[in-house]
Amino acid sequence: MARVAAGPEIERLIQLLARLPGLGPRSARRAALHLVKKKEQLLGPLAAALAETRDTILTCATCGNIDTQSPCTLCRDPARDRSLICVVEEVGDLWALERAQVLNGLYHVLGGTLSPLDGVGPDDLSIAKLIERARDPGVKEVLLALNATVEGQSTAHYLMDRLTGAEVTVSRLAHGVPIGGELDYLDEGTLAAAVKARKTM
Amino acid sequence: MARVAAGPEIERLIQLLARLPGLGPRSARRAALHLVKKKEQLLGPLAAALAETRDTILTCATCGNIDTQSPCTLCRDPARDRSLICVVEEVGDLWALERAQVLNGLYHVLGGTLSPLDGVGPDDLSIAKLIERARDPGVKEVLLALNATVEGQSTAHYLMDRLTGAEVTVSRLAHGVPIGGELDYLDEGTLAAAVKARKTM
Repeated sequence: MARVAAGPEIERLIQLLARLPGLGPRSARRAALHLVKKKEQLLGPLAAALAETRDTILTCATCGNIDTQSPCTLCRDPARDRSLICVVEEVGDLWALERAQVLNGLYHVLGGTLSPLDGVGPDDLSIAKLIERARDPGVKEVLLALNATVEGQSTAHYLMDRLTGAEVTVSRLAHGVPIGGELDYLDEGTLAAAVKARKTM
Repeated sequence: MARVAAGPEIERLIQLLARLPGLGPRSARRAALHLVKKKEQLLGPLAAALAETRDTILTCATCGNIDTQSPCTLCRDPARDRSLICVVEEVGDLWALERAQVLNGLYHVLGGTLSPLDGVGPDDLSIAKLIERARDPGVKEVLLALNATVEGQSTAHYLMDRLTGAEVTVSRLAHGVPIGGELDYLDEGTLAAAVKARKTM
């Protein structure tokens, strides 16, 4: 255990920063120091932004996106194409696809993939809600934009079976997505190519 | 300009996180998402810790350390050896030396190095205060633990000249410190070796 050079408040701040993805114990210390140095320009605004996020953040009851209102900004947007629902595993995947600017439909966040070994069954994901949404007569296509992993693809096959009753075309991303890759790590160009060449299942 | 999938509050949070050292725009997005997912365990506590730091953080009027009290925890500690003042460029260097657990004296943070080209002269650093502290009869040694860079070493020579009037031994870190290296990046072992083998100037 190293000696504490700063007060316990700063040590606590460092410990919390170290739990962010991309920061380790050492970079968290540098980040804390940077924050303290930029107290007015960065520390204050970041504290306020985090408090505001904590107090206002919601999960969209329709699609599972994160926003400060429910239904979320995307679900409310009258300019979006309501005939297409793009199914993703996590909110980060939704953000990645939005960055690619290639889809103008709605989304549906599953909240993960089926994983019997980890005890994750259909009831643990937002699948019933998806089936309900897909039965809306206005919906023409469900695009399964799941990760190109074993879990993602087996979940996609399960969803395709469940969606056979609904009057929709079920599609998947084209195989521009590298095998084993995860959407959130891909560049916008690859994502755009994969969306444009999507195949009917 | 990418489309905004989340609300402006989250986009603002992402922009602020991206200004932390070690996080870029993409990793800031992942960090924001991680924070939102861990709302109770991480987002809330981090918001509170930042707000507390913003409201309580002080610069020690004696040594320039960052703490919630002034004089700081180190300056107040009766177990510290008051005959030794270790001079560092930045607070991060002080923290690095404390992690090495090799010094039990007091510190003095200069706030940078002399840099005539950038307009940084002696009055822009905490040098007058250091000379004042070094004149205290209880102080026997001033250890100049500055970076092994051109700026750090020319600042050390300037300080050595200024300290000739004071009845103190002026020492520097041993040449265990790699040339061109910065203290905050070194491992504890190298720092400890450099402190133990310090030379009288």
